[in-house]
Amino acid sequence: MGIWNDRKLIVNCLPLTESERAQFIRAAKDMPQEFVGDSTQRGSMSWTAAVPEELKAKATAVIGNIAPEECAQCPKLEWLQTWSAGVDKYQRPGILQPGSMLTNATGAYGQSVSEHMFAMMWAIMKNLHIYAASNPNAMWQDAGRAISPNGKTALVIGTGDIGSHFARLCKNVGMTTIGIRRNLAVEAPGVDHMVGFDSLDDVLQYADVIAMSVPSTPATRHLLNAERIASLKPDAIIINAGRGNAIESQALADALAEGRIHGAALDVTEPEPLPADSPLWCEPKCLII
Amino acid sequence: MGIWNDRKLIVNCLPLTESERAQFIRAAKDMPQEFVGDSTQRGSMSWTAAVPEELKAKATAVIGNIAPEECAQCPKLEWLQTWSAGVDKYQRPGILQPGSMLTNATGAYGQSVSEHMFAMMWAIMKNLHIYAASNPNAMWQDAGRAISPNGKTALVIGTGDIGSHFARLCKNVGMTTIGIRRNLAVEAPGVDHMVGFDSLDDVLQYADVIAMSVPSTPATRHLLNAERIASLKPDAIIINAGRGNAIESQALADALAEGRIHGAALDVTEPEPLPADSPLWCEPKCLII
Repeated sequence: MGIWNDRKLIVNCLPLTESERAQFIRAAKDMPQEFVGDSTQRGSMSWTAAVPEELKAKATAVIGNIAPEECAQCPKLEWLQTWSAGVDKYQRPGILQPGSMLTNATGAYGQSVSEHMFAMMWAIMKNLHIYAASNPNAMWQDAGRAISPNGKTALVIGTGDIGSHFARLCKNVGMTTIGIRRNLAVEAPGVDHMVGFDSLDDVLQYADVIAMSVPSTPATRHLLNAERIASLKPDAIIINAGRGNAIESQALADALAEGRIHGAALDVTEPEPLPADSPLWCEPKCLII
Repeated sequence: MGIWNDRKLIVNCLPLTESERAQFIRAAKDMPQEFVGDSTQRGSMSWTAAVPEELKAKATAVIGNIAPEECAQCPKLEWLQTWSAGVDKYQRPGILQPGSMLTNATGAYGQSVSEHMFAMMWAIMKNLHIYAASNPNAMWQDAGRAISPNGKTALVIGTGDIGSHFARLCKNVGMTTIGIRRNLAVEAPGVDHMVGFDSLDDVLQYADVIAMSVPSTPATRHLLNAERIASLKPDAIIINAGRGNAIESQALADALAEGRIHGAALDVTEPEPLPADSPLWCEPKCLII
């Protein structure tokens, strides 16, 4: 092992099996690599990784979402590869050294996250979350009218990997899809009609399902605000799998409590985690996963 | 109105709107018709109808699922049109007069029931029922590994209107479908491979999803018994939307409690309603709707 490699160290935080570790070792060739991931977290959606102090001092590359404040404790860190698509936590000043590289996992989650959104859409349409919540009380009570996706319109806000996958799933069950994206020139399979963000207010009224998978940027904060929620159809369903703050949380809670929309499913919340006293937890029309 | 019509009376128990009532009146021509349905039950899946005593004495036709014991209180009843597909409750001796006619609503529920089954399949695959049940506790806890339907196999037991619709939905999201039906000569769109009931034990091992929509007959009672449940894949998902007694309830509860299958979703139970002390109510892996 040459002197070059003595100065490099990959700290791999992924919850890998033995054979997956072997693949990473092969891929890294001579580069030293320490594995600190917890393989018992496989299958979980929320991996955590603790990097021992002595490795923080040496790490030049980290694979995984370490706590942002830990980045500052890695003085040699040149490259952080997240396992998430979102990286806004690491883009704040003081987290990464100037000149260091930040890469994300865009494209790795299109299928799984879009499937979650699709499953949530069906659950809300058929009121399954309401039945599930009352099951432990050994009680069945009619949860009201179910909705069919057939012939309905999904408005897909953010048509990257996840949104595009979601749109295709919707089309497969007879829905029409409208996509909203910044760059209209980029193709998104599954989207019937693509419009820009400046057309959001024009198309909201046609949406039976509003599916959001936008990154957290100043432009997307409270994109679905009180005024826009007020313009939705009375049977509209909101699904958020992007960033929690893309929806004005209180406005959503109010609309649900007042029965102004059919329901909402949230894979992300504002704030995150959602405080125990948020009205959304106990709102029967809301599913938080 | 002639003497003939004085001797006939349709008692209509459907929860109709005014304009729907007008359609029934037009369709019945000169035939007298009394409407006793409760329109506030529209959209509910469990209509009830109470027929006043004086109408029971005169009713020659009833549209709707009155309580079976009430049939015996209608001495002139010539025709019962149920709103359900299943009619076994009315086929027992002493319920309907000899020679009277019983017609069901097969074909009316293919889309709505199959969509419920499909929604339940997705919910179980993504553990949404587990999150929904813990939402009111203001608590999020990882519910474990999610399953994708893509590339999986659905075994559709009973491929009538409902099963066939369900199979098509499954194929639309990348699943392979095996159908089981009594009469192999009848076509079922959406089914890739059709086999007879005598092949059930041969194909169970290939099923990632077992979707049941069979009528209640002596042949279907405990069709999915302890032995067959024991032969399923460890990640299998059972969905029952036909008749509750097609599954051996205790065997299902045991398999779920011991983690021998991924989950179950029940639109029907054995017995019905499910007693409050059934372990299925509190089984996290089970969704009862």
